Amino acid sequence: MTSEPHFPARRLTLADLLPGIPVLLAGGANRHRNFKAFTYPFRASSHYLFFGAPNEPDHVLLILNGEATLYRPKLGEDDAVWHGETATDEELKSKWQLQEVKSIEELPEDLSTLGVDEVLSLPSPDEATNAFVKQYLGRVPSLDEDPDIDLVDAMMELRRCQDDAAQEGVRKACRATVALQKAVLGQCAPGVTEAALKGVYDRHLAENSWQASFQPIISVAGEVLHNPYYHNELKEGDLLLVDCGAEVSGGYAGDLTRTVPVSGTFTETQKAVYDIVDRARAESIEMIAPGVHFKDLHMKASLVIAEGLVDLGILKGEPKDLVDKGVHALFFCHGLGHLVGLDVHDMEDFGDRIGYEEGEEREEQFGLSNLRLSRELEVGMVVTIEPGYYRIPALLSSKLGESLSQYVDQDKLEQFSDVRGIRIEDMVLVTDAGYEVLSRELPTASGELEKLVGAAKATV
Amino acid sequence: MTSEPHFPARRLTLADLLPGIPVLLAGGANRHRNFKAFTYPFRASSHYLFFGAPNEPDHVLLILNGEATLYRPKLGEDDAVWHGETATDEELKSKWQLQEVKSIEELPEDLSTLGVDEVLSLPSPDEATNAFVKQYLGRVPSLDEDPDIDLVDAMMELRRCQDDAAQEGVRKACRATVALQKAVLGQCAPGVTEAALKGVYDRHLAENSWQASFQPIISVAGEVLHNPYYHNELKEGDLLLVDCGAEVSGGYAGDLTRTVPVSGTFTETQKAVYDIVDRARAESIEMIAPGVHFKDLHMKASLVIAEGLVDLGILKGEPKDLVDKGVHALFFCHGLGHLVGLDVHDMEDFGDRIGYEEGEEREEQFGLSNLRLSRELEVGMVVTIEPGYYRIPALLSSKLGESLSQYVDQDKLEQFSDVRGIRIEDMVLVTDAGYEVLSRELPTASGELEKLVGAAKATV
Repeated sequence: MTSEPHFPARRLTLADLLPGIPVLLAGGANRHRNFKAFTYPFRASSHYLFFGAPNEPDHVLLILNGEATLYRPKLGEDDAVWHGETATDEELKSKWQLQEVKSIEELPEDLSTLGVDEVLSLPSPDEATNAFVKQYLGRVPSLDEDPDIDLVDAMMELRRCQDDAAQEGVRKACRATVALQKAVLGQCAPGVTEAALKGVYDRHLAENSWQASFQPIISVAGEVLHNPYYHNELKEGDLLLVDCGAEVSGGYAGDLTRTVPVSGTFTETQKAVYDIVDRARAESIEMIAPGVHFKDLHMKASLVIAEGLVDLGILKGEPKDLVDKGVHALFFCHGLGHLVGLDVHDMEDFGDRIGYEEGEEREEQFGLSNLRLSRELEVGMVVTIEPGYYRIPALLSSKLGESLSQYVDQDKLEQFSDVRGIRIEDMVLVTDAGYEVLSRELPTASGELEKLVGAAKATV
Repeated sequence: MTSEPHFPARRLTLADLLPGIPVLLAGGANRHRNFKAFTYPFRASSHYLFFGAPNEPDHVLLILNGEATLYRPKLGEDDAVWHGETATDEELKSKWQLQEVKSIEELPEDLSTLGVDEVLSLPSPDEATNAFVKQYLGRVPSLDEDPDIDLVDAMMELRRCQDDAAQEGVRKACRATVALQKAVLGQCAPGVTEAALKGVYDRHLAENSWQASFQPIISVAGEVLHNPYYHNELKEGDLLLVDCGAEVSGGYAGDLTRTVPVSGTFTETQKAVYDIVDRARAESIEMIAPGVHFKDLHMKASLVIAEGLVDLGILKGEPKDLVDKGVHALFFCHGLGHLVGLDVHDMEDFGDRIGYEEGEEREEQFGLSNLRLSRELEVGMVVTIEPGYYRIPALLSSKLGESLSQYVDQDKLEQFSDVRGIRIEDMVLVTDAGYEVLSRELPTASGELEKLVGAAKATV
């Protein structure tokens, strides 16, 4: 059993932020599929995992002044028959460095003897978990009301920048995701199905005892931004977009995207657009340093893309002016990136409270309206940098598309019809010196990337 | 697009059972993992799928007098940008043979103009889905109270015996599961990890676009009955228990178990116990015919196991007497099987109302108390037959184990210490003539089974 001193340290920091205030964090209930006994693979809440506790359903962590008590479900007589031997209280105490381990039945009395008005907590995306917490607190916790709002702010303080142990976790998740990407890209070839590549991905996850940090995109229809389907066959001339992540033990998430030519060689048109997106990636990453605003990176990437598309003749006008008007967002319509940590969109449960600097709000212009992160960078933050280019028929023919059509050369765009969707996504740690690209082992340069395509094909 | 005449036919049968009564079936909401946007792969409710509707979240089917209207979420302006093109109303109407396809926003008014007091519905294992339905009906549907109880009975009438289309679905799921088993067993060998075999399983599912019909058991700790962990390495001398199922398009589930020697050859002790379990399987299957009570099959399997363990010297006494006392349940502690259909434990949401003949209740004796199915067999039912033998330390040392210890020869049991858990599970269709073993392509005879072990190892 490795000693994990960061868990007690995190609990003490919480005590500094909320002195004398008890915090109750539910790991959460199992999520049921078509019937109660068929549960999806369980994953506890990230806030709960952050302070050190087992990834098992129906557990609750109560933290007060740096001391943590774990409450777990009372074991039934038959439990050992059906589920095998479970860890003893002493084993759990030692493994997670807890002050006490108790049965959940003891929680109501323990809460009543705390002698405080309020115990802070956080809501779950799962309603059954909220109902479970309500039993004990008499309310479903809130993200933007007293008293829980203080806990939201404390969690942002604790998790916004990754501490040393968290950085180690994210690095591990990133390495795992690099390996995952290589496994998938290595089997890419004409005639292979997306489903087969999803199989390669699933196998690689399972055999390493990793989980998916989100439902992966493995598709030749890269222009569909959220695309959890795997129905197509890869064809010569297609681009394959792979956006996936491994979640490693401890719960940290990876998130990387590569877009490759199915044939192993980009066409001239594909390479031209790909190189623009890769330049947007590189130039925005180069700006990363503590104190730099993430929105400025987004604007830089937008400008590089606009410049590139003007050079190719797809867009017409002055690049800076096109970006001001939001024309680039017809082709790069999402934000440049987001925080990564225990959640792949870290603390997305807190919405723009975590995504945006206090006092800042989302802009209304299409494109900027999709920017998830708009904050000054701080040492220890891990962000994704993921510019893209997409030719989305529904967007180009929308009211917005029509209103900006004078800036688009349709004939020229037609010449690039073999470019449907490209995204390149790295994971980057903000450091004192500037930045470290955590995913540098997975190349982005078109020539290097081509070498990965189908590289493992011969061996299976 | 294939025509699927069984969907309208099923809706008409529902109208016969509940004439003039509207039925509202929610497909269900997405289940969220650690944050809202990370959803598990969606699977709609089986009751909803049964009547023909797309496997997409937040859809609702309203059926009245054999006519079906599908309500789907209102598409936002950006939906086509993020999710790609969705099916048109006309495409859905044609594919699912629906009378109408509407926006969910129209449901409240449509319900109010039905001019009836009650619309019947069914609860979900997911609380968010229940809250969703409550918006429209003003209540969370109930499984055992008026008015929904009539719908529970109607669904049992419709789904208890598989109609022709359902039988085709179950056969397909069974064939898929046979292939899945062969893929996993084919990679079984000393030094391989359970995680690696879980990887083989996951890959085989994904590349065929199948889902898991439940979290599989792939373990050398076969004595742990519910065991969704894959942490062990397979060793020479171990038995590997693989209990898994594929869910195929349409939603039908497979469920098969095989237990194999990791080395490719059963030891003498393993083979002795294995053959008893396989005899229990064969002899209970041979009894299957319409009108036969499933509990009698369970008792037959229990007797065969008791006889076998007496022959081996592990149990002491007269087999019939040992079964009466429930001694066999120290080693075969679960029920012989369950219904299979759209759910792998079909309609388990209805509990013993579906599992037990009207007027019958679960018995209290340990072992029988775990029998999920206790009904007269009918033509079209698909059941699993899954006897087992487990050496569960927690059970043998329990109060029950102590109280029955005079019937167990501990020294003899010790000689069989390389037998931790064995289960053999087939899927069987009840026919006019008796039965058909749907899984007959997957051998159970020890000699035949051994040939599957590691058979695919050389090729990867």
